[in-house]
Amino acid sequence: MQRHLIWEKIEEAKESKKLSWEEIARQTGISAVFLVAVCMGKATAEKEQADRICALLGLGPEISDQLQKCVDRSWDKQVPNDPVLYRFYEAFGVYGEAVRELIWEKFGDGIMSAVDMVISLERVDTASGPRVRIVMDGKFLPYRKG
Amino acid sequence: MQRHLIWEKIEEAKESKKLSWEEIARQTGISAVFLVAVCMGKATAEKEQADRICALLGLGPEISDQLQKCVDRSWDKQVPNDPVLYRFYEAFGVYGEAVRELIWEKFGDGIMSAVDMVISLERVDTASGPRVRIVMDGKFLPYRKG
Amino acid sequence: MQRHLIWEKIEEAKESKKLSWEEIARQTGISAVFLVAVCMGKATAEKEQADRICALLGLGPEISDQLQKCVDRSWDKQVPNDPVLYRFYEAFGVYGEAVRELIWEKFGDGIMSAVDMVISLERVDTASGPRVRIVMDGKFLPYRKG
Amino acid sequence: MQRHLIWEKIEEAKESKKLSWEEIARQTGISAVFLVAVCMGKATAEKEQADRICALLGLGPEISDQLQKCVDRSWDKQVPNDPVLYRFYEAFGVYGEAVRELIWEKFGDGIMSAVDMVISLERVDTASGPRVRIVMDGKFLPYRKG
Amino acid sequence: MQRHLIWEKIEEAKESKKLSWEEIARQTGISAVFLVAVCMGKATAEKEQADRICALLGLGPEISDQLQKCVDRSWDKQVPNDPVLYRFYEAFGVYGEAVRELIWEKFGDGIMSAVDMVISLERVDTASGPRVRIVMDGKFLPYRKG
Amino acid sequence: MQRHLIWEKIEEAKESKKLSWEEIARQTGISAVFLVAVCMGKATAEKEQADRICALLGLGPEISDQLQKCVDRSWDKQVPNDPVLYRFYEAFGVYGEAVRELIWEKFGDGIMSAVDMVISLERVDTASGPRVRIVMDGKFLPYRKG
Amino acid sequence: MQRHLIWEKIEEAKESKKLSWEEIARQTGISAVFLVAVCMGKATAEKEQADRICALLGLGPEISDQLQKCVDRSWDKQVPNDPVLYRFYEAFGVYGEAVRELIWEKFGDGIMSAVDMVISLERVDTASGPRVRIVMDGKFLPYRKG
Amino acid sequence: MQRHLIWEKIEEAKESKKLSWEEIARQTGISAVFLVAVCMGKATAEKEQADRICALLGLGPEISDQLQKCVDRSWDKQVPNDPVLYRFYEAFGVYGEAVRELIWEKFGDGIMSAVDMVISLERVDTASGPRVRIVMDGKFLPYRKG
Amino acid sequence: MQRHLIWEKIEEAKESKKLSWEEIARQTGISAVFLVAVCMGKATAEKEQADRICALLGLGPEISDQLQKCVDRSWDKQVPNDPVLYRFYEAFGVYGEAVRELIWEKFGDGIMSAVDMVISLERVDTASGPRVRIVMDGKFLPYRKG
Amino acid sequence: MQRHLIWEKIEEAKESKKLSWEEIARQTGISAVFLVAVCMGKATAEKEQADRICALLGLGPEISDQLQKCVDRSWDKQVPNDPVLYRFYEAFGVYGEAVRELIWEKFGDGIMSAVDMVISLERVDTASGPRVRIVMDGKFLPYRKG
Repeated sequence: MQRHLIWEKIEEAKESKKLSWEEIARQTGISAVFLVAVCMGKATAEKEQADRICALLGLGPEISDQLQKCVDRSWDKQVPNDPVLYRFYEAFGVYGEAVRELIWEKFGDGIMSAVDMVISLERVDTASGPRVRIVMDGKFLPYRKG
Repeated sequence: MQRHLIWEKIEEAKESKKLSWEEIARQTGISAVFLVAVCMGKATAEKEQADRICALLGLGPEISDQLQKCVDRSWDKQVPNDPVLYRFYEAFGVYGEAVRELIWEKFGDGIMSAVDMVISLERVDTASGPRVRIVMDGKFLPYRKG
Repeated sequence: MQRHLIWEKIEEAKESKKLSWEEIARQTGISAVFLVAVCMGKATAEKEQADRICALLGLGPEISDQLQKCVDRSWDKQVPNDPVLYRFYEAFGVYGEAVRELIWEKFGDGIMSAVDMVISLERVDTASGPRVRIVMDGKFLPYRKG
Repeated sequence: MQRHLIWEKIEEAKESKKLSWEEIARQTGISAVFLVAVCMGKATAEKEQADRICALLGLGPEISDQLQKCVDRSWDKQVPNDPVLYRFYEAFGVYGEAVRELIWEKFGDGIMSAVDMVISLERVDTASGPRVRIVMDGKFLPYRKG
Repeated sequence: MQRHLIWEKIEEAKESKKLSWEEIARQTGISAVFLVAVCMGKATAEKEQADRICALLGLGPEISDQLQKCVDRSWDKQVPNDPVLYRFYEAFGVYGEAVRELIWEKFGDGIMSAVDMVISLERVDTASGPRVRIVMDGKFLPYRKG
Repeated sequence: MQRHLIWEKIEEAKESKKLSWEEIARQTGISAVFLVAVCMGKATAEKEQADRICALLGLGPEISDQLQKCVDRSWDKQVPNDPVLYRFYEAFGVYGEAVRELIWEKFGDGIMSAVDMVISLERVDTASGPRVRIVMDGKFLPYRKG
Repeated sequence: MQRHLIWEKIEEAKESKKLSWEEIARQTGISAVFLVAVCMGKATAEKEQADRICALLGLGPEISDQLQKCVDRSWDKQVPNDPVLYRFYEAFGVYGEAVRELIWEKFGDGIMSAVDMVISLERVDTASGPRVRIVMDGKFLPYRKG
Repeated sequence: MQRHLIWEKIEEAKESKKLSWEEIARQTGISAVFLVAVCMGKATAEKEQADRICALLGLGPEISDQLQKCVDRSWDKQVPNDPVLYRFYEAFGVYGEAVRELIWEKFGDGIMSAVDMVISLERVDTASGPRVRIVMDGKFLPYRKG
Repeated sequence: MQRHLIWEKIEEAKESKKLSWEEIARQTGISAVFLVAVCMGKATAEKEQADRICALLGLGPEISDQLQKCVDRSWDKQVPNDPVLYRFYEAFGVYGEAVRELIWEKFGDGIMSAVDMVISLERVDTASGPRVRIVMDGKFLPYRKG
Repeated sequence: MQRHLIWEKIEEAKESKKLSWEEIARQTGISAVFLVAVCMGKATAEKEQADRICALLGLGPEISDQLQKCVDRSWDKQVPNDPVLYRFYEAFGVYGEAVRELIWEKFGDGIMSAVDMVISLERVDTASGPRVRIVMDGKFLPYRKG
């Protein structure tokens, strides 16, 4: 079964059970961004994670199997143009080199891993309105010297 | 004076005074990512911010004036390929749609602003090595309904 | 149901009821550009807006539900080449930097939001023929200083 | 003399005379967006317009001559990524087809000219903050039927 | 009905009636390039034009209705590579700037409209073989000065 | 000497002698588009043509030599965006396939040469304003069958 | 019938009759590269050529008719990446300008036609292994001087 | 010394000695396309070849040394648009897949090398005018099976 | 039968027989990367190789026939963005020129063949975790000197 | 001092001392590919590595300092077209997905790091000629599950 069909099945189950992603994340103990990425076919779950998702949503073991399979994480647009997605791209177009300068200062020559990384998102309500707070927490990988 | 010349002057002053960005940020009270972006010509400072930076680095008022000017925030590569910069791009290529799904759930129809946004970066040392922790804190902007 | 099928259903209903967009906009109290964008799947309506559109066109609640869902606002061509669409692109290719210069002068460092924005269009008949008058009215967002 | 050198000369004269674009526009009777575009080398002035600009700024006839010359109106980036410029691009990426639908309804088969067009910009202060109001006023050109 | 299906129907009718485009153009009084463009869905006919085409080809009113609808005139390849189409592109790549220089000399600051334009094509037989003669006849549009 | 320097020399000479391209074309007996293309370095002149151009403009034999040299006819932008140049591109984007259909009908399988081609331009004044009339006259080249 | 379906029919017939392209070329008297291009829908045959191909392969007159129709010779990838095709592209990327220099020396200002061109291919067995020998034989077309 | 300066020096020497490439090729015993490619910096000569070229042209040993150095054979335009160069590209866009089909038939699974390849060019005068005859003679390289 | 259908059949057979690629490689005596490439339709097997693969997986001779057919080895994305694939691309973006410098030093002017090449992959477990070890073993091809 | 100037200084020193990269690698104990990458400005050395390189080549401490600085590892061409570099790109275009399949089988969901990676190159002389043997040895990084 193709991943986008699994996504549709999950969306239907989620809607019929009136569950939010936040609620599914809480009940399965899986962090929300990773959870949604697994369901969209952009990440791969551990067996127990996949089983918990399927149990909660009332989906069979063949769905759980699929959620555990390694996937091609490609995307289509080199530069996204949906406005929500574009803002993430723009933020690092504008501030990326400044962030790199600080990584060099605090860590030395290396990168922040995009593989051993956890992304999380939070809503913060302030006097001047709600704010989106995204945390990217990635392992620092030093360059191999030789 | 062109912005990349200002960047060179700032780097020289910073080196000769043996100041780190962290130290400059602390002494000027300006957050570090924004501070570096101003010095690189990718952001614009308030007068008092620019004056404090120049005072600390021993640079004249003509540099301070420049740091306050509105700038073109363009960048050259549609897709960055320096490995540090690419990982930021990849993170949102892989997880961007999952993040958007959660913004829709928690906030409704709108975006996280890349203009009213603060980016910060922290080093977290863990048993399995240092981690980079980047926080993007942006105002939620709901779509105007008509 | 996919958004392009909804668009077809709306077009059929509109044609069979001999309604113009101007008339639908007037009767529903929704501004015309936003109204068409909602029907094309490039914008999301409030519940009462969606219900009014469906009531007027004789469409069921499942259509109204769809019109309220958050949507991916992506488009396919980086540079449009349909002649009508290209002229909008060209206008800002030619005059965009001049407009930015004036935004900087009148507002300072920031942008005109494309999210908290209303676009409207009017026909103005003059001695030398009809003119198209498009108004873009967007909130000014100042850059966060740090 | 190359156009970007003229731009620099104009900027210097404007600064030393402490004139804003709004003031130059008012005193010369030339609309502001067009005025700035002429000075940037993206538009061509009539003789009397060029002369008035140069008289006000104290620039010689060789500058006025240049401002009257036909120019290549090309730009470099197919998709702008400076945030101010990108928002104009995004606005028509999202709403362009809706605007075209309404042009078809109100005018029939044709385009809004980007040549016989006036763009203007205004600041509107509201309770919820300042708004940018851009008006594009272009002649409707019907397609030649054969 | 989609435009490419209409094109197929027209081609079938034209073949079964053994009509050439030249003959259809002559009998309907519609110029040939525009006529073919209408049938391909790259142009829109007036009602009487569409009716005459359908009458001659024995096609029903639903086809005539379609030929009168406004259409998206987009094309897929930024640079065509079919050899016939490429030569048109190449001709203006090589001679376009020279042609522009002469438009500036003879008309001043403005463009040749691609909307109020008639393209025609003729075969000219000469001693050294047949030649293609394409005439582009477009309205000159002066730039609006402000 | 590089071709763009020759272009500057020719422009200066033309201005100081107050000659138009039309006049130079008339006096040298060279068609105007080709003449300008030679001077811009996008075409190569015969010896007698180059000599006549230089004699009229008072330029030396080293310029004449250069005008006779074979040149790289490349251009930079795959899709031009100067508005004058873009309209030529658009005209064939919209009507190119219709023109090809007629070439096939009138000539059979082959192309209009862009090498054995003469482009000319004329101003036609009509009641509704001036029109640009461009004629492309190119040899038909049939495809070699094997 | 679409051209890729014809290609499949031809391949089946060729396989069931155990004919090689070399053998079909020999028996029909059509050069091999052109023959294959016709069958792939990238070239157009004369009536007698098409009839001979169909007679040999046992295909009906509707296939022969199709092989005679003018075709769009477009291709999809601007730069091919199949390794066989890429090597042709690379050869002219590396040696193209050297070949042009020699065309200029031996023929003057003009091109080698890609329309009045015959391409042939031969296998040459040498002591150090087989070699591919491709001959491109194209008419020289001098540039029209004016 | 940079390769384009060497090219200029070679061109000057060649002109002052009134030598054609054909003559230089004949006197040095080096095939002409390769010879020109070496001089343009797109190929590397053996020591004796470089010495013979320099001896004939009266150039010193430092030039000969340079001609023997390994070079980056990159080129700038993914798709060439100079008309001479484009025709080579077009020829393989149209006929490349047909040529590949015949390589597969005559040689099996592999490629024609673009490295162990000799390109030569000849002028053939025929009753219907001169023809360019380019021969690409490349080693067949079978794919390694495992 | 299309290659991606063959891939699906092979995957099903492999799963139902609970075979790993490593096991299939061992039992057929075919190296693993090449084996998988053949099954994916990116390489062509010898008859005995294809027969052995099909015998082991219980697939019929029509599959074996297909695995022996020459294939188009094209790929879709110029720059891959799946993270696994991107790292290979990045490795040569960063180190490719250094590797080339060493090929020039150790072998002289030429390339490492990507056709007469074997790629293999091994897992190496170390104290600091598992490492991927990829070996590219390609024939050196010297450039033909003329 | 800019990195490409350092590269030139290093090349001069290396030539005047008649050292090969292999020799420099042996004497400094730094692996060759990394060594060259450092000298080209595509990698950063440890202090002792930089000092050893400079000592051997007779270069001063300001060069050593530079070699230790963090660098932007960007490259210009998305797809390289120098033939040596292109073959690396092609190898992974053809075999990349097969390699990924085997990484998934042997390691599970993750990537081969391009940061904690060592690339080495060896010449292997065989009966059928020399072969290039490149080893990429990179740490396996498992995807973070949440």
